[in-house]
Amino acid sequence: MNQKRKIAVVITARPSYSRVKTVLEAIDNHPDLELQLIVAASALLDRYGSAVNYIEKDGFKIAARVFNVLEGENLTAAAKTTGIGILELSSVFDNLKPDIAVTVADRFETMATAIAASYMNIPLAHIQGGEVTGNIDEKVRHSITKLADYHFVASESAKERVIKLGENPEMVFNTGCPSIDLAKEIIESENLPFDPYEKYGGVGAKPDLSKGYLVVMQHPVTTEYKDSRKHIESTLEAIYKLDRPTLWFWPNVDAGADGTSTGIRAFREQHLLPNVHFFKNMEGRDFLQLLKHSDCLIGNSSVGIRECAFLGVPVVNIGSRQNRRDRGGNSVDVDYSQEQIENAILDSIKKGKAVSSSIYGNGKAGEKIAELLTEVPLQFHKTIMY
Amino acid sequence: MNQKRKIAVVITARPSYSRVKTVLEAIDNHPDLELQLIVAASALLDRYGSAVNYIEKDGFKIAARVFNVLEGENLTAAAKTTGIGILELSSVFDNLKPDIAVTVADRFETMATAIAASYMNIPLAHIQGGEVTGNIDEKVRHSITKLADYHFVASESAKERVIKLGENPEMVFNTGCPSIDLAKEIIESENLPFDPYEKYGGVGAKPDLSKGYLVVMQHPVTTEYKDSRKHIESTLEAIYKLDRPTLWFWPNVDAGADGTSTGIRAFREQHLLPNVHFFKNMEGRDFLQLLKHSDCLIGNSSVGIRECAFLGVPVVNIGSRQNRRDRGGNSVDVDYSQEQIENAILDSIKKGKAVSSSIYGNGKAGEKIAELLTEVPLQFHKTIMY
Amino acid sequence: MNQKRKIAVVITARPSYSRVKTVLEAIDNHPDLELQLIVAASALLDRYGSAVNYIEKDGFKIAARVFNVLEGENLTAAAKTTGIGILELSSVFDNLKPDIAVTVADRFETMATAIAASYMNIPLAHIQGGEVTGNIDEKVRHSITKLADYHFVASESAKERVIKLGENPEMVFNTGCPSIDLAKEIIESENLPFDPYEKYGGVGAKPDLSKGYLVVMQHPVTTEYKDSRKHIESTLEAIYKLDRPTLWFWPNVDAGADGTSTGIRAFREQHLLPNVHFFKNMEGRDFLQLLKHSDCLIGNSSVGIRECAFLGVPVVNIGSRQNRRDRGGNSVDVDYSQEQIENAILDSIKKGKAVSSSIYGNGKAGEKIAELLTEVPLQFHKTIMY
Amino acid sequence: MNQKRKIAVVITARPSYSRVKTVLEAIDNHPDLELQLIVAASALLDRYGSAVNYIEKDGFKIAARVFNVLEGENLTAAAKTTGIGILELSSVFDNLKPDIAVTVADRFETMATAIAASYMNIPLAHIQGGEVTGNIDEKVRHSITKLADYHFVASESAKERVIKLGENPEMVFNTGCPSIDLAKEIIESENLPFDPYEKYGGVGAKPDLSKGYLVVMQHPVTTEYKDSRKHIESTLEAIYKLDRPTLWFWPNVDAGADGTSTGIRAFREQHLLPNVHFFKNMEGRDFLQLLKHSDCLIGNSSVGIRECAFLGVPVVNIGSRQNRRDRGGNSVDVDYSQEQIENAILDSIKKGKAVSSSIYGNGKAGEKIAELLTEVPLQFHKTIMY
Repeated sequence: MNQKRKIAVVITARPSYSRVKTVLEAIDNHPDLELQLIVAASALLDRYGSAVNYIEKDGFKIAARVFNVLEGENLTAAAKTTGIGILELSSVFDNLKPDIAVTVADRFETMATAIAASYMNIPLAHIQGGEVTGNIDEKVRHSITKLADYHFVASESAKERVIKLGENPEMVFNTGCPSIDLAKEIIESENLPFDPYEKYGGVGAKPDLSKGYLVVMQHPVTTEYKDSRKHIESTLEAIYKLDRPTLWFWPNVDAGADGTSTGIRAFREQHLLPNVHFFKNMEGRDFLQLLKHSDCLIGNSSVGIRECAFLGVPVVNIGSRQNRRDRGGNSVDVDYSQEQIENAILDSIKKGKAVSSSIYGNGKAGEKIAELLTEVPLQFHKTIMY
Repeated sequence: MNQKRKIAVVITARPSYSRVKTVLEAIDNHPDLELQLIVAASALLDRYGSAVNYIEKDGFKIAARVFNVLEGENLTAAAKTTGIGILELSSVFDNLKPDIAVTVADRFETMATAIAASYMNIPLAHIQGGEVTGNIDEKVRHSITKLADYHFVASESAKERVIKLGENPEMVFNTGCPSIDLAKEIIESENLPFDPYEKYGGVGAKPDLSKGYLVVMQHPVTTEYKDSRKHIESTLEAIYKLDRPTLWFWPNVDAGADGTSTGIRAFREQHLLPNVHFFKNMEGRDFLQLLKHSDCLIGNSSVGIRECAFLGVPVVNIGSRQNRRDRGGNSVDVDYSQEQIENAILDSIKKGKAVSSSIYGNGKAGEKIAELLTEVPLQFHKTIMY
Repeated sequence: MNQKRKIAVVITARPSYSRVKTVLEAIDNHPDLELQLIVAASALLDRYGSAVNYIEKDGFKIAARVFNVLEGENLTAAAKTTGIGILELSSVFDNLKPDIAVTVADRFETMATAIAASYMNIPLAHIQGGEVTGNIDEKVRHSITKLADYHFVASESAKERVIKLGENPEMVFNTGCPSIDLAKEIIESENLPFDPYEKYGGVGAKPDLSKGYLVVMQHPVTTEYKDSRKHIESTLEAIYKLDRPTLWFWPNVDAGADGTSTGIRAFREQHLLPNVHFFKNMEGRDFLQLLKHSDCLIGNSSVGIRECAFLGVPVVNIGSRQNRRDRGGNSVDVDYSQEQIENAILDSIKKGKAVSSSIYGNGKAGEKIAELLTEVPLQFHKTIMY
Repeated sequence: MNQKRKIAVVITARPSYSRVKTVLEAIDNHPDLELQLIVAASALLDRYGSAVNYIEKDGFKIAARVFNVLEGENLTAAAKTTGIGILELSSVFDNLKPDIAVTVADRFETMATAIAASYMNIPLAHIQGGEVTGNIDEKVRHSITKLADYHFVASESAKERVIKLGENPEMVFNTGCPSIDLAKEIIESENLPFDPYEKYGGVGAKPDLSKGYLVVMQHPVTTEYKDSRKHIESTLEAIYKLDRPTLWFWPNVDAGADGTSTGIRAFREQHLLPNVHFFKNMEGRDFLQLLKHSDCLIGNSSVGIRECAFLGVPVVNIGSRQNRRDRGGNSVDVDYSQEQIENAILDSIKKGKAVSSSIYGNGKAGEKIAELLTEVPLQFHKTIMY
């Protein structure tokens, strides 16, 4: 009799959960796999949207919780959070004895999963390697690629890049991005199927959404730590000036989180924003519905590059955070400039929906990854291919 | 007026210190650089040869000591040692505020330096990237390459490999290996200039070295953790059978250290070894003198591949630890087999000295690296070149 | 020539800083002492009032910053924060090599200072031992007493209690509470010398303070973790019903902080509070001025028991947090009951100012402690007296 | 239906395990209790005798292993080991959710258990509080008493002391010392029932034990860190001079361990000891047999004061480590002086066996403690009694 392979997946943030939710479902449902779901870092914390609550509501069983976010308004805290993450995750792995550990994307603390697993001779799978963004996330992402044994990448160009990085091509799989799986489910949706104010609370005005609305999601950029307050102010001013119905999402925890959050709070104290509502977070499928029916997404979230490309939603992408990520035809890049942002939004509204692009996959990534996890050889030795 | 650049170098083990000693000297002596020497991990510990004592005797000022080795006979301890290293080093960097941090080679805990520095936006230099060995060290080495901003590599093939890894060629420098700098100083030596028993103590027999002798240095191989005892036994039996004057060096701390050490201890309790003397450690230049005048080095130390290639000392290289590292003409590779080891030693003695190879540099690495540290742009942004 | 004694004082929270500020000044000004001020834990964090900013504005030089607050909505985080504190403080002490370490009061993380110092054979002084409050703070306080070598207590009953705990009476000193030093400076003040809204910002209404006002400061009680939200609601409802000018201070970080904070936030969203203004924090002397000119302090802060006793300000003390602390004649104790709180406030206003009590000292504690720190023998051996 | 109470016992060292073994047995066998055995710190490490191997051989199921010993030849490592212990144990407690946590005696790292449990509102039981020894152990011991909710003490004087420390007399139980339980089992033994050389290996001479023999067990004393090497040399010289059959046990890990161990190793290298055999460790019951049939125990182990008092074995107690612990009539106290040690040994041999004393209990401690653990109220609130 075959034993099920135990797959430990570590989720460290709200957006990572949304991104890989269909992978978790597919692992959980697969007869040959046992899901060991570990929830860590900001995914456990109220002020970053408590992804853990959604995870539980979605019916996943949590195998371990790892509190490792060290508070502090500086980059040192990011390093220390990672150090504590290694201390804690190595104990968790020691208890759970997974056959494979899975780490997602490129946030700084995902490195803790990669180090704990690879140092403990646990085969390591990496989802979403090989992409290019040009900041600390990119260092982390490629560094994890060099620790990982299996690579589940989201696009052909990512696949080529991982192979160029010297990985064994037989262990690099273009599964598409699992975030597209969710987008696929709702692409035919004709109306927003819920009232966001009622379902998600939040604060601020409650503008009428029936004539179109904007969505804003802008995160601090780690390497531009000190500038994050100035950056968010350009966006705030553009939105303030346009004065259209707008739904604004708070940023993730990051080294500069407080610059961005502080900027938003200060702006709100000094300006009336009669058309802007603020949300802390939203369940992944609902968020995609919100985007699908919006006029335009503004900010620097990867959701603009990925899911919105598939959904055909226009995106105004601000600053360097998504630099060099593959683009569908739905987005326009602007600088941290009120004027550029404003004009790009007006242009986007004028042009309307873009055509759907499958550059980041066709909506089957979760199933493909689960299947691959049953098939890949269990190994933690590798050597560079050149 | 120009301020001196502050260069933090983190030394975590005895062999790393020997390897980069001329780099430390060159930084310390450079008018435009200030050396911030951080001694960490096993470099501080008595049972791994207290590199710190040699460092102080050599006249270096130590800016910080970091105790982060977690005891434990398992791989989890290696992960946790790295996590603690990040916690401690980030505080140290926060205090010292270096302009550049330098991490050396590929031991698991060197990753702590790389993460603390890169997460804190401190430009990171990596010495000895780009080499290939086929085990956890290799994962660590290439992973650090992807975090590092400057690469001081030891050979042309390492340089090509780092560039293939997507690094900016302008930031990849073939300086040669600094360990060759020391070898160069003693290459003309005609006699062993000290009595090793008197100068370094140690335990066991004190064979007459005047008619030739063997040197053994064999470390555990991390990915073959459970086998390290068996591996060392093949070597022990070969040496026992040959019964020639032999100087044996204890292994480093590593996840499997106790397998190797235990194997040696157990063998000693069961066998008389009238021709074998054991040392814990030796100052770098003295060790090279010892090798220079030996018949053959046996084991899996990189010193066999590097310094011995330059010195022309025959080497019997056992097992996978140096796999795919560039070779001069001085070494032969054998398996963990008593017979192969024995025969290879006898062959090597018969053939005698090899010709000196400069594949790992010409003896000027320390100076070159120090000079480069004054010249490279201070930057911590990078992006992959493809 | 005598060398100055190096005195390391670790400040971990805003209220602790206010309490010992005159001690820091007296050490800093003493010709035979050198202050090594270490700022740690919530004292560094924005959302707990950034005591560090006040510390710098007050002109103190900070020798080290220790970020050790682990985020998490549970008690585990308090334990882990203490563990990280020990890791970090032991490195700090190793660098600073203080002659004496000083820990203040009884917050959970002050234990980290006590353990790091006593395990490293650094003589440990404890300020404000010997008091009784009946919760986790009390366990911590007496536990630190048993690690400390010198005891600077705030009242005669505290002195007796520390001696009963088996401490050497020669090492127990009733210096009075240093918080009274600040109170003494302002006891003759006739008018509030600043506009709190202008100087400290904050949010909410800006009631007219000229006809009298209430001050509220209520912290969560650790051992009643789950109840902290319910507790704060009684107070909120009482204040809401009274509808008098009220200045409300946010609570400290504690395991239950989020219960209390969440309770306040939720209440504000559901009720208009046209007479209530919220502050995050206030410089110590200003806060005492605010109390001095208020009608009544409501809550469970020790400032009500201590400084307000000296100032003669009426206090409605809620719940168990100050249980069994010595009282002057200025306070009345009530349960977590809206009705009791409401009635006690009205009574207090009717009665008006109480007579000043010197039960917690006469305003010279800072100087006395500094002087004692020059005199006590430097020792870390002790044994229980019975 | 009653659920079993879950009792988490944390064992951190070989001697602690021996001491509480009958408690573990009694908990494990009790129908109303579930044992959650946590093995931590030096109890897991080979070079301190791997208590964990005995624990498993004795048939206990281990609920969690906690590696937290930080290597380092200094006191800082003791502090850091405790900090890491808190980080790890809080995760373990979070998983196991014990109803009561039990910490044993007074080694520095037992504080980690006390802090993790009390900060997490887990009722804490302390075994062997209230004793007096006059060094860092004593600080730790009484400090833990102030965190603990239940006190299982070993003698009447210990009980009185814990009550004087302000603990509720209803929660202080003189159960006797569980180490006496083992002594009771073997008190009628007439001959050494095993060959120690054969069963436990060890190194050195194998003197004939049939005409009587000495046992030595001397630990470093933490507060006399630097002197530990000198201290052990007095004992070594006395034993060397007496030249009688002697069985010597290596010391525990402690801050000064290396002083003591180094002293022993150096002495052995310089002197032939034809009558001395060295053991690393021995199973508890066997060790008591060895003592029972010996002429005299020399050193500073608490076994001399406790079990040997019950067994009537003469003891030469050296130095300050057992200062002020209650004595039976079997021991004599001497200084770190070769001459005093030598004379006391000769005297002891002349006098022969002492009468059995039950000052540390009558051999039922394990059962009493288990029974009490089913009965005590589950509470973590307490307040000092005066």
